[in-house]
Amino acid sequence: MASDFRLKEQLPRLTDRIVATYKCAGAVHYLGHCPLPNYDEIIECVADLKDILYPGYRRREGLHIGNVTYHVGDIIDGLHDKLTRQIARALQHDDRVNGGNTCDPETDYEAKGQAMAIAFLERIPYLREILGTDARAAYDGDPACRSIDEVVFCYPGLEAITVHRIAHEMRKLGVPFIPRMMSEWSHKQTGIDIHPGAIIGHHFFIDHGTGVVVGETCEIGNNVKLYQGVTLGALSFATDDDGNLVRGHKRHPTLEDGVVIYANATVLGGRTVVGHHSVIGSSVWLTHSVEPHTTVVMEKPKLRIRAEVPDELKPELNYQI
Amino acid sequence: MASDFRLKEQLPRLTDRIVATYKCAGAVHYLGHCPLPNYDEIIECVADLKDILYPGYRRREGLHIGNVTYHVGDIIDGLHDKLTRQIARALQHDDRVNGGNTCDPETDYEAKGQAMAIAFLERIPYLREILGTDARAAYDGDPACRSIDEVVFCYPGLEAITVHRIAHEMRKLGVPFIPRMMSEWSHKQTGIDIHPGAIIGHHFFIDHGTGVVVGETCEIGNNVKLYQGVTLGALSFATDDDGNLVRGHKRHPTLEDGVVIYANATVLGGRTVVGHHSVIGSSVWLTHSVEPHTTVVMEKPKLRIRAEVPDELKPELNYQI
Amino acid sequence: MASDFRLKEQLPRLTDRIVATYKCAGAVHYLGHCPLPNYDEIIECVADLKDILYPGYRRREGLHIGNVTYHVGDIIDGLHDKLTRQIARALQHDDRVNGGNTCDPETDYEAKGQAMAIAFLERIPYLREILGTDARAAYDGDPACRSIDEVVFCYPGLEAITVHRIAHEMRKLGVPFIPRMMSEWSHKQTGIDIHPGAIIGHHFFIDHGTGVVVGETCEIGNNVKLYQGVTLGALSFATDDDGNLVRGHKRHPTLEDGVVIYANATVLGGRTVVGHHSVIGSSVWLTHSVEPHTTVVMEKPKLRIRAEVPDELKPELNYQI
Amino acid sequence: MASDFRLKEQLPRLTDRIVATYKCAGAVHYLGHCPLPNYDEIIECVADLKDILYPGYRRREGLHIGNVTYHVGDIIDGLHDKLTRQIARALQHDDRVNGGNTCDPETDYEAKGQAMAIAFLERIPYLREILGTDARAAYDGDPACRSIDEVVFCYPGLEAITVHRIAHEMRKLGVPFIPRMMSEWSHKQTGIDIHPGAIIGHHFFIDHGTGVVVGETCEIGNNVKLYQGVTLGALSFATDDDGNLVRGHKRHPTLEDGVVIYANATVLGGRTVVGHHSVIGSSVWLTHSVEPHTTVVMEKPKLRIRAEVPDELKPELNYQI
Amino acid sequence: MASDFRLKEQLPRLTDRIVATYKCAGAVHYLGHCPLPNYDEIIECVADLKDILYPGYRRREGLHIGNVTYHVGDIIDGLHDKLTRQIARALQHDDRVNGGNTCDPETDYEAKGQAMAIAFLERIPYLREILGTDARAAYDGDPACRSIDEVVFCYPGLEAITVHRIAHEMRKLGVPFIPRMMSEWSHKQTGIDIHPGAIIGHHFFIDHGTGVVVGETCEIGNNVKLYQGVTLGALSFATDDDGNLVRGHKRHPTLEDGVVIYANATVLGGRTVVGHHSVIGSSVWLTHSVEPHTTVVMEKPKLRIRAEVPDELKPELNYQI
Amino acid sequence: MASDFRLKEQLPRLTDRIVATYKCAGAVHYLGHCPLPNYDEIIECVADLKDILYPGYRRREGLHIGNVTYHVGDIIDGLHDKLTRQIARALQHDDRVNGGNTCDPETDYEAKGQAMAIAFLERIPYLREILGTDARAAYDGDPACRSIDEVVFCYPGLEAITVHRIAHEMRKLGVPFIPRMMSEWSHKQTGIDIHPGAIIGHHFFIDHGTGVVVGETCEIGNNVKLYQGVTLGALSFATDDDGNLVRGHKRHPTLEDGVVIYANATVLGGRTVVGHHSVIGSSVWLTHSVEPHTTVVMEKPKLRIRAEVPDELKPELNYQI
Repeated sequence: MASDFRLKEQLPRLTDRIVATYKCAGAVHYLGHCPLPNYDEIIECVADLKDILYPGYRRREGLHIGNVTYHVGDIIDGLHDKLTRQIARALQHDDRVNGGNTCDPETDYEAKGQAMAIAFLERIPYLREILGTDARAAYDGDPACRSIDEVVFCYPGLEAITVHRIAHEMRKLGVPFIPRMMSEWSHKQTGIDIHPGAIIGHHFFIDHGTGVVVGETCEIGNNVKLYQGVTLGALSFATDDDGNLVRGHKRHPTLEDGVVIYANATVLGGRTVVGHHSVIGSSVWLTHSVEPHTTVVMEKPKLRIRAEVPDELKPELNYQI
Repeated sequence: MASDFRLKEQLPRLTDRIVATYKCAGAVHYLGHCPLPNYDEIIECVADLKDILYPGYRRREGLHIGNVTYHVGDIIDGLHDKLTRQIARALQHDDRVNGGNTCDPETDYEAKGQAMAIAFLERIPYLREILGTDARAAYDGDPACRSIDEVVFCYPGLEAITVHRIAHEMRKLGVPFIPRMMSEWSHKQTGIDIHPGAIIGHHFFIDHGTGVVVGETCEIGNNVKLYQGVTLGALSFATDDDGNLVRGHKRHPTLEDGVVIYANATVLGGRTVVGHHSVIGSSVWLTHSVEPHTTVVMEKPKLRIRAEVPDELKPELNYQI
Repeated sequence: MASDFRLKEQLPRLTDRIVATYKCAGAVHYLGHCPLPNYDEIIECVADLKDILYPGYRRREGLHIGNVTYHVGDIIDGLHDKLTRQIARALQHDDRVNGGNTCDPETDYEAKGQAMAIAFLERIPYLREILGTDARAAYDGDPACRSIDEVVFCYPGLEAITVHRIAHEMRKLGVPFIPRMMSEWSHKQTGIDIHPGAIIGHHFFIDHGTGVVVGETCEIGNNVKLYQGVTLGALSFATDDDGNLVRGHKRHPTLEDGVVIYANATVLGGRTVVGHHSVIGSSVWLTHSVEPHTTVVMEKPKLRIRAEVPDELKPELNYQI
Repeated sequence: MASDFRLKEQLPRLTDRIVATYKCAGAVHYLGHCPLPNYDEIIECVADLKDILYPGYRRREGLHIGNVTYHVGDIIDGLHDKLTRQIARALQHDDRVNGGNTCDPETDYEAKGQAMAIAFLERIPYLREILGTDARAAYDGDPACRSIDEVVFCYPGLEAITVHRIAHEMRKLGVPFIPRMMSEWSHKQTGIDIHPGAIIGHHFFIDHGTGVVVGETCEIGNNVKLYQGVTLGALSFATDDDGNLVRGHKRHPTLEDGVVIYANATVLGGRTVVGHHSVIGSSVWLTHSVEPHTTVVMEKPKLRIRAEVPDELKPELNYQI
Repeated sequence: MASDFRLKEQLPRLTDRIVATYKCAGAVHYLGHCPLPNYDEIIECVADLKDILYPGYRRREGLHIGNVTYHVGDIIDGLHDKLTRQIARALQHDDRVNGGNTCDPETDYEAKGQAMAIAFLERIPYLREILGTDARAAYDGDPACRSIDEVVFCYPGLEAITVHRIAHEMRKLGVPFIPRMMSEWSHKQTGIDIHPGAIIGHHFFIDHGTGVVVGETCEIGNNVKLYQGVTLGALSFATDDDGNLVRGHKRHPTLEDGVVIYANATVLGGRTVVGHHSVIGSSVWLTHSVEPHTTVVMEKPKLRIRAEVPDELKPELNYQI
Repeated sequence: MASDFRLKEQLPRLTDRIVATYKCAGAVHYLGHCPLPNYDEIIECVADLKDILYPGYRRREGLHIGNVTYHVGDIIDGLHDKLTRQIARALQHDDRVNGGNTCDPETDYEAKGQAMAIAFLERIPYLREILGTDARAAYDGDPACRSIDEVVFCYPGLEAITVHRIAHEMRKLGVPFIPRMMSEWSHKQTGIDIHPGAIIGHHFFIDHGTGVVVGETCEIGNNVKLYQGVTLGALSFATDDDGNLVRGHKRHPTLEDGVVIYANATVLGGRTVVGHHSVIGSSVWLTHSVEPHTTVVMEKPKLRIRAEVPDELKPELNYQI
């Protein structure tokens, strides 16, 4: 009972066939000498940032006010180096994409990366402040929640907004590519997909969160609350005369302060504005603007209610134990 | 091409600014000397428990009836120590949260933790029994499924109910915080969010599962089946005279035995009871009770069907290869 | 403050009680001497395959056309061994499940496994070609996307279709169990649940993706695009005279070329065919066929819009900072 | 400041040149399809065995008499599988070496390996007993030692004799290759090089140990003590008529019961017998037998003692601080 | 070709036989409820200390004077916790060994451990100072050495004296057991065996080092240099009336300032004093005191030099290539 | 039972005191912005090189002539990058040491590093050839050895000469620092200390090896064999007028072809030449040259042999079991 070693002799030929596909025009690969940003190091940066934004919760136990300065100082220093390196790579990549596949040998990407890294790190006190409002909003908004510590440990909504605010600040500074890598990592962790371009006010809370989508050009005010499955999306995409997508214009809705959107509701369109302190009910599908202080719920849903279960809808089996 | 080391000189000043934010009133941090439950060790406990609940599937190959006693005995012993330690931390944290930020030096948290740990471990034979019914329900309920082994390996629904039943038993014993850490870990893995407080009968099956939310005060009978995207949620939250949320009262629906709820349906409200052997159709939005043996489906959905596709809805490009 | 060692004396008795549950008829365990496919090694195979399908993006930096042959050849060789071993295990497991719990000592599973492994590896150039169309479709279909590299790095839809195409090829070759392990791993990563049985044409794109379900017997044409939360599911399940599910017949819909289905729409039933170049709007619930070039959207949704927010729907608190 | 990618173009040619050297007659490589014993798994077996031989000291804390059975039973089971697999490989390798580079397809190496693995495991109670005498001898023989626990944790001599006794039992059972892999690993750890062939009585103690060499055909009685740097070696090697070494005959000395050999002494020759209860002094060089109860020390060493230090022997610098 | 599962049925019986040996009087095991110091954590402390003593060389790149405070402060804080915990365990173990196998429930080992941990950490500036002299002595003493950095990276002698000075300070503070664990770890790394009890002056240098043994009661002055294979040992051991070893009195020699001892020399005995600025030649065997400024070399070694090589000493083969 | 948190308040002050020691003149640290060669990556290079020099033995199983090209090509490519990077760092460090603590911003270290890296890799076929003679010499020289595979797996002498030949080639190319890092790593593994500067002919064999020292300026012919504890050292060191060591001139002996040196012999001095085919006996101490074909053994060693063992030399205890 063993594999036949002569059959393996075909593998080199197969290797050649695979490599041949790398040489086709338009093939998908990243073969060349400009390195891409390194995924693992970027995720490590996110973990480092979370250690600073929420000190004492995860990787390091036993922090107290007497030693936390050392801890933070040590992490900040490492972050400076990692971010400088990765942003430099991202800038180089961006030039390459935009400039026809070569990277400009004259540009000092490292220096540019460092400037952006430091500018970003300077935003940490602001991030601490605004994320504090998000944690508070989660605690105040969920009757099942027992403490702020539970929010930090157990709320995917806080995880998602934390990574979003990091990614969004980077994007505002002009860092290419990396914000999307971060947001997609967060999407994988939480099921919440917020594009780094979205502008979001303070005291933002997403409950449960799986399936939430917040598009690139959304603008969200303060004190907004979303439930699982909410989509803030585009109605349709504009194309130019050649049929190519027009990238970058406002395609996603605006939510003003104090808006609440319940589970699985869908709000679409770049001109759609949900006025402040409005409430959008569960499963509503909304493509136009509503005034402030408006409630939108599904028309008393038309349900067919029959006093029996037809055979084809019956559960397969019912068990007794 | 290198970063400028003089620019790094600003980092210590930045560190000080960040640390200053830890000292603000109401700041989010966990700086102090009572340790929180350790996330990694708790997740390790879940993995240990799965090894006992489903022996032979994952971490250890080659188990058979002759050696499994050693394996289980070795794991149980380690679990006793880990659970004792972590429950003690959780109890201490709970006292701190409730008692104004100090932990009671008189309380023997370790002894309390051990008592709860042992009481929990005693529930494992029961967990084996009831999870066996869940695995069976999955196999019988999915025509695409080939074997019970496939259920154990490949069904996120079984993963979610397994962690839920573990977390729920802990919560019943009064263990704070840890059940939520476990359920959130499971949510991250499966996209299924079941609060540890939910009461769920035997032969429970969630198919596909992404986006399912089961709230804290749900009561679910036996032989119930849910599909992806189902929300069993609250209608609205009661507040007391100060405008603070009232925590703990029944806010989520009751499903009696034999209920089936199809994909993306939403059932809301603490007084909503779905009578036994009823079927709730896909995408239904239900906020009131229904009798046993009832079928609820969307009214023949009013769709606008046009024999053309307007330009703005057309896919961007259609390719030929 | 310490745990009481005498209390631990109950643990051996508990171990015996747990092990007793393994001996019950119908108990869920995998105790025996035929090994299951190894989950970790299968996931490693997926990672190896992604390195070949998208060279240069992830695990190995610095690949270029001069060295990539070595890299691919080295991986292919290892893949041959791992796949041979794991497919042999899966075949053995399959015989055991079908043949009453013993594995046939006469069968040379290793040789069969090798034949399937090589046949699968021969499909890699084809997979490269068709996945190239999927990456292209994602780039062309999302105005927020800046480069093909971003698609490979940041699009869960590409991740999902990549694993699906791998798993589907394996299933076509008759490999049991492993395709489902792969697809469930992908489901966990992306929130997109595509059954390995589904047949999917070229230029396929899923945007955002969380909550998408594509059933076992779906048939999907070329140039199809799905958004998050789309379900392509079964209407109900046929049972035989004994009440057991009939497994394997067509239960899920067919989408012809160029179909677009927007977020959270649900299309159900094995006889439902969505004609080519049709568009199904967001949240539509469709259980019957539509002609080619048809647009289906929700009837101007009946919403109740009130110029106030009732107390019970008001957000708990609105903050100022 | 970057490397020149064109220079890398020479690497494929270099690869070819290197691979060409693998094809030369007599080249050192292990290219083929019979696997060698796996070094890492063998070292893991040694670690497992130490956990059983000295329970509670290293990898697992918190063992007590109530749980140790599970721990040992679990390890023994795993050891059975690993040893079976590795001994099978070693037997196969041995046949290949002896039989002209092919391994016999008729032989059931796995079955032979299992028989040897079980026979070896049956020797563990004996190993426990005799290693207990070695630990005792270390404690009684070193005035700097505070407890038996210190011996187990901190004495390289015990480490070396432990691995030796394991390897020696295996060799007695006819296991090829693996005993040498184990002894060399121990040599690397401790600087003590004992060939698995050496026969050693109970209550054996090596103090400090670095540089000790005990040859393949040594015979050592009970209650023997060696210090660092002791060599028990061969005088010279017999060759056959073709000038090849004669392998296997007795080339190393015999030490009878109660012998003590002080640091850096050298005892050579297969016919050299050190009679019982003799003492060999530090740095002695002995190539002939001595009677029982004999003391052998260096002749009052002839030292040249001068009341000055010539310039060329002076230390380079003398510092004050 | 497979192992026979029925043969494995003997393993549980074997497990019982092994466990039975744990219950014998005098058996070597550590079964019980007082934990031993944890080997891995102690080695981690050594690594942490080396990071502080030689900042910038190993685990962390990119340290500079601007960030090193954070780095050191963060490590010191963790060291405090680890050392407190491990010293507490060691004290508890010590009481148990001395007090008849129980640990005193009244003693606050943790508090004692903390006091010792802090007292030890206070010695770090002193350790920095004196180890600086050792590094200097190595650089000045080896003509093959190019820089101080090479000393820190590549000199096992510096590694050995570093760990010795750490362990010795701990021992002076009364910490039991742990200093020996540290010194044995260093012995394993370097082949240099210095007992933590040895007293050693500044500017100490061991070149090459393998096989060096420095006994517990050695006293070594300043500016001393040893070469590989040097033994500073005991002549013989005193026993009390019961024949038990007398532990603790001075058994090893004294070397005064400026002494140099060349390779493989042996100096023995507690009353042996090598006077300051003396030189002991290679391979000398010395058991009595010598005056200051004395040179001791082997008497012009009596060698037998024959103008031929007898057959039995000839190398086996001489090759041409 | 807990540590006192107020005591920890002294730690920041201690941190400051430690950091102050980094600022002292002549303090040992590596604080600054030129990175040192990275120890871990250099050791990884050694492991990669061993995979190429002895393919199929260690890290990768299942290599055969059909796939080994891919494996080697993949490793070579990675080695090019790692060596380029590390040699650049070493060159930069060297300039810094020689040039007064700054590294030259004009020098393109990376380009220099690449040139050296490629020149080194070109030497691999030569290394394969000469190491093949060493493996052969070990097999032919040890009657206890069963196969060449055993040599590769189990002979520290081969390990040591392998790393030496790698390090020596690098040194010949002018690579600073790294050769010493490699040789010291090998010293730690094997107890054999060969300076990278030593020149060694083909068919070199060190048996057992612990304690062997081969100095920087040794010259060793072909077919030479050393046993454990052999020192090829310097007699004394020349100093210049300032009392500083003269670095670099020949201080260590020359061994001509076919010389054998038995255990613990010492040969010293830069002018000492051991003529070809001479044999130096165990423990001989030689500081002058000998003619070819000479045998040097210790004068019939003057031993004092007494027919009794004085009390002070008696082993402590003799046991019966």
